[in-house]
Amino acid sequence: MPFPVALLTDFGDADPYAGQLRGTLAALAPGAPVIDLSHGVEPFNVAQGAFFLAASLEHFPPGTVFLAVVDPGVGGPRRLLALAAAGRTILAPDNGLAGLVLARHPGARVFDLSAHAHGAASHTFHGRDVLAPLAARLARGEAPAALGPALDPAALVRPGWTSPAREATPGGTRILAAVIHVDRFGNCVLNLDARTWGPPLRAAAAIVAQAAGGPARPARAVRAYAELAPGELGLLAGSQGYLELACNQAPAARALAARCAAPLTLTLPGAHP
Amino acid sequence: MPFPVALLTDFGDADPYAGQLRGTLAALAPGAPVIDLSHGVEPFNVAQGAFFLAASLEHFPPGTVFLAVVDPGVGGPRRLLALAAAGRTILAPDNGLAGLVLARHPGARVFDLSAHAHGAASHTFHGRDVLAPLAARLARGEAPAALGPALDPAALVRPGWTSPAREATPGGTRILAAVIHVDRFGNCVLNLDARTWGPPLRAAAAIVAQAAGGPARPARAVRAYAELAPGELGLLAGSQGYLELACNQAPAARALAARCAAPLTLTLPGAHP
Amino acid sequence: MPFPVALLTDFGDADPYAGQLRGTLAALAPGAPVIDLSHGVEPFNVAQGAFFLAASLEHFPPGTVFLAVVDPGVGGPRRLLALAAAGRTILAPDNGLAGLVLARHPGARVFDLSAHAHGAASHTFHGRDVLAPLAARLARGEAPAALGPALDPAALVRPGWTSPAREATPGGTRILAAVIHVDRFGNCVLNLDARTWGPPLRAAAAIVAQAAGGPARPARAVRAYAELAPGELGLLAGSQGYLELACNQAPAARALAARCAAPLTLTLPGAHP
Repeated sequence: MPFPVALLTDFGDADPYAGQLRGTLAALAPGAPVIDLSHGVEPFNVAQGAFFLAASLEHFPPGTVFLAVVDPGVGGPRRLLALAAAGRTILAPDNGLAGLVLARHPGARVFDLSAHAHGAASHTFHGRDVLAPLAARLARGEAPAALGPALDPAALVRPGWTSPAREATPGGTRILAAVIHVDRFGNCVLNLDARTWGPPLRAAAAIVAQAAGGPARPARAVRAYAELAPGELGLLAGSQGYLELACNQAPAARALAARCAAPLTLTLPGAHP
Repeated sequence: MPFPVALLTDFGDADPYAGQLRGTLAALAPGAPVIDLSHGVEPFNVAQGAFFLAASLEHFPPGTVFLAVVDPGVGGPRRLLALAAAGRTILAPDNGLAGLVLARHPGARVFDLSAHAHGAASHTFHGRDVLAPLAARLARGEAPAALGPALDPAALVRPGWTSPAREATPGGTRILAAVIHVDRFGNCVLNLDARTWGPPLRAAAAIVAQAAGGPARPARAVRAYAELAPGELGLLAGSQGYLELACNQAPAARALAARCAAPLTLTLPGAHP
Repeated sequence: MPFPVALLTDFGDADPYAGQLRGTLAALAPGAPVIDLSHGVEPFNVAQGAFFLAASLEHFPPGTVFLAVVDPGVGGPRRLLALAAAGRTILAPDNGLAGLVLARHPGARVFDLSAHAHGAASHTFHGRDVLAPLAARLARGEAPAALGPALDPAALVRPGWTSPAREATPGGTRILAAVIHVDRFGNCVLNLDARTWGPPLRAAAAIVAQAAGGPARPARAVRAYAELAPGELGLLAGSQGYLELACNQAPAARALAARCAAPLTLTLPGAHP
């Protein structure tokens, strides 16, 4: 049985592009389950796509091939990659889209697939014409190393949001983060991996959150939305493996005046996590 | 071959949540067809989700497991249920989401799955971490009774919209209904099961429809949109098994100033269905 | 193994209609892959649906059955068709939805399925109640000819947008086209098949594009978005097999003030392709 192929793009669900990916994979890897992770990444929002990928990777079956396309540079000189991590393989452009997976899995092996783009059928849809045929080969059992030469992971493009910073200030510790996703319920996901950032923040006596251009708001570390009083802002590990700011049945994004991709600081007065 | 799993949620299609359900099921029930019923229920709109479920149940293959998540109380004390009806099984929180199925299938068997939520991997995503593994067990052939103790269906939460009322007035009969869905074409679906409410309303000489806060509009009982003149409002059994108010290639919701969840009265002057 | 069934509708992804198509096909053609091409065609926009279909047909496996529903006349007297072209079969109402496929494949064989609509379970959802069962029969291996009598393709409904015109003017050549799709990125797809219209337009020294009611804008023939300078408008063959007007990482639709279904002229001063 072929491995599953998971699709992650910024194509939206209305255009025929996602459908053509599915059709192409059905033709080239018959019997491989094709699973939509999401096509709802905002156009060209690489950070949001990177979060979707890192948050979802290990919820898919071992062996799954992720075909990930958020690719503002299509047709230009950017590299195409295969990244093997946690028993799955990701095919993606080299623009940071696999950056949060790489931050979690620094031992990932990376391969350069760029040569496959020469002479592509189209100059505007490498997802369908270059990456889907490669995904089909992986789904049928080929190894990523068969698709191109190895690359040093240190050579990959790493945007700033892949490594949030902390700094000591006279009033306490300040964490310079970013909102990498605002979900349908208004929850604001931060680029703070819950494994490393969760314990110190849960221990903090007081937290103040402020999105760029928005009001400073106290936030309380909780475990479930239902623990929050009406109007109260919570900071929780959430279900996605990254810290998120949330209200109970209300949009935290509105309380913070935060939008996807906004810088956001967490200040912990007196604490030094 | 495993049974299919159908997904119904208010997660939307943009967030990674629906994709993670699909991935989890692919991992835990390999080979089970995973079929999206819809992820477009409005956030927390239990009545709309209940309609989607009841309208769709018997269009899916016998044995299908419905994983239904519209769950404003996630992480709180609400129960989780399995409901076996019409040869299919529904997994859902106990908040009325299975309420229209239960109204049609009063002999449904119900089981309490709440114990599975203790010690869940997340406090915010029971659909993925609690219900999906149970759906996978059912898809692989386990019986609902194996998942938890039986519950008296009379003990379930039953919101008011599951049982529309009628009352006699000096001017005729008044049916106190609700709009439980406004579809993409502006058709307004009511919480009136066509099996019980269709025959008396088709026989009515005159019908006046009025959504809360909107204008009173005469409506004519018809069988197809194409029977309606431009601008005319029709009441028809539709394809969903519930009565709907519709115009021909125009949005009835605008004519009625009706929104999803609005109360709506149908007045039948002089008639007493 | 049954053939795949591809779904193309204007149902949107929120309503339960697409899910009911999937459930019905799972029940009637177990094991047939059901692949969403798109449910995002604008309500009743037959031209846009026709484009999605023609652009996607050959990206799906040979043998695929396309269930295509953009059907403002449902319940009225319009015909239902099966159209066999390029080794695939399309089921669709006779309203032009298969018109761009027919323009590319004039030798397609066509069959009249209208008799199956008599006595349909619903008068409003022939996609689920009439066409899905027929799609299941085709997926299981029946021939289109078994479903109804042959029809002369010349008898089908052919809207004007299936055949764009060109005219000579004192100032050059004018092509009377239409925007048949504006995609998520703001690219404007025209009803100009790249196979026939691409070569003369690539050779044009200068091109001026103007959507109805919008400004006249110079456009340059290019091969990839990345060739365009910021703010520059390009005309390219794109990945969909039809010419499109595009900007680099910016919405051409805004530059042209163009909307889906708008007439659009391309003027080639002095040139006579």
